[in-house]
Amino acid sequence: MLARKDLWYSEYHSNDVKLSFNIAEYLHEEETPFQKIAFMKNETFGTFFTLDGYIMLTEKDEFVYHDMITHPAMATNPDIKNVLIIGGGDGGSARELSRYKHIERIDMVEIDERVVRLCQKFLPQTAEVLDKDPRIHLYFEDGLAFAKNAKDGEYDLILVDSTDPIGPSEGLFTYDFYSNCFRILNEKGILINQHESAFFEDFRSEMIRAHQKIKKIFPIAKVYGFNTPTYASGYWYFGFASKKLDPIKDHDKEKWESFGLKTKYYNSDLHGGCFALPTYVRQILEAI
Amino acid sequence: MLARKDLWYSEYHSNDVKLSFNIAEYLHEEETPFQKIAFMKNETFGTFFTLDGYIMLTEKDEFVYHDMITHPAMATNPDIKNVLIIGGGDGGSARELSRYKHIERIDMVEIDERVVRLCQKFLPQTAEVLDKDPRIHLYFEDGLAFAKNAKDGEYDLILVDSTDPIGPSEGLFTYDFYSNCFRILNEKGILINQHESAFFEDFRSEMIRAHQKIKKIFPIAKVYGFNTPTYASGYWYFGFASKKLDPIKDHDKEKWESFGLKTKYYNSDLHGGCFALPTYVRQILEAI
Repeated sequence: MLARKDLWYSEYHSNDVKLSFNIAEYLHEEETPFQKIAFMKNETFGTFFTLDGYIMLTEKDEFVYHDMITHPAMATNPDIKNVLIIGGGDGGSARELSRYKHIERIDMVEIDERVVRLCQKFLPQTAEVLDKDPRIHLYFEDGLAFAKNAKDGEYDLILVDSTDPIGPSEGLFTYDFYSNCFRILNEKGILINQHESAFFEDFRSEMIRAHQKIKKIFPIAKVYGFNTPTYASGYWYFGFASKKLDPIKDHDKEKWESFGLKTKYYNSDLHGGCFALPTYVRQILEAI
Repeated sequence: MLARKDLWYSEYHSNDVKLSFNIAEYLHEEETPFQKIAFMKNETFGTFFTLDGYIMLTEKDEFVYHDMITHPAMATNPDIKNVLIIGGGDGGSARELSRYKHIERIDMVEIDERVVRLCQKFLPQTAEVLDKDPRIHLYFEDGLAFAKNAKDGEYDLILVDSTDPIGPSEGLFTYDFYSNCFRILNEKGILINQHESAFFEDFRSEMIRAHQKIKKIFPIAKVYGFNTPTYASGYWYFGFASKKLDPIKDHDKEKWESFGLKTKYYNSDLHGGCFALPTYVRQILEAI
């Protein structure tokens, strides 16, 4: 009898807890000036890729993350026309935005061109939109510098679709960066950013650090969560920061539903639900 | 240099995905007439135990499960006085209920006495209440038979705090059992039961099977979710079934808050939020 192919990829959620995936096919790996990239295939989760050993997305659960990074903001201000994506090299955030016909411009600033090129090859589900929608403009630059050089009030929405605050993404979790985001957003501007997760200590401390800074800069700074099976603890958070729009009070359900978008995770009820945080998470944020 | 103690416990979420815990201490294992029980310790999650290889609870995240199996029902009908717990040998559900001073009787039917005795030894955090609160009555019997023999309308609330529908818990996922639950609940009665999870196929099919049966018996049959890091996909569901009370319309926030209970996961906002399901979960349930 042939032995089962016993190749496993593991991600550590703490030094003594790990989530492992049996690798049906090891597709590709390379080292760029910025990070190590690897593409693999698992039967249950499909093709997935890692940056410096952290899972970025899998074919089967990326819909959760990409629904949740885009639609709550779009349903709070359905008139958003100019969007800046920092990171997001896999194309999933751009794909969801490109479904809104009234959006005029999507600037996507990804520091590592190889992430985009490899996703175009191995993950067309998210990346194929990148050379098909002329509203998407790719910039292979440092997001921090890009934000510094952008004009005041240029954007309606900024999505920080980055890795955790290690390696090339570290600058995207700084006070300087968030201040520039505030400056280049217009008066109805919204910033959605990585808020990590709350259960495991390492991620929780990053959540606190990110939220501390955002709260000092933006008058409205809320947090919402979503269930991503492949991220640590199974629950991940985004920050919703804005100059004046409140995601609950200004939720424009009717207009958003009039767009007729089919979504597999997000819906109008969940819009409110995802901002209702567990008590321990609320306490972490209130203590800041 | 001494090697790290490299003992790992793994639970498979599908045949090619597993969550693993480094075992700091292997505390105990035994086989009862019903199942294999094991107690272990992991630094991050604390003491935890498994039944037939499935993690039941860990010291560090059990608060989520036990908040969510009890408080949403108690906040829908804050006058609940007589409760039946089927399973729940670790004592966590009884502990949460025993915090309500107005509850008069908590009947707990656990088929395997060894689960209770071992939890009293290794997990006092959940189990120590069991011999301290005189309102708690322990029955080491089959829950299926107990429900059959109980009187019509005897209970205000039934919690099915069981393992997955394999081994001794299989009968707790049958039409017969749910029908008896309906019969022994009074007119304001509520049944909370295991609804497994929706992402991985094996668990999803059990969610569908359980919900199909409940929906045929109870006029109101809803589902709500919560983030448990140690369960498959990180998100788990309970069914809320009742004869006439609706968890949203009849939510008695004021009365529940007047009890002044401190909870680490549940809160009044989350009460509504947890019933707002992701679209793909909603579709699974609506197709039934």
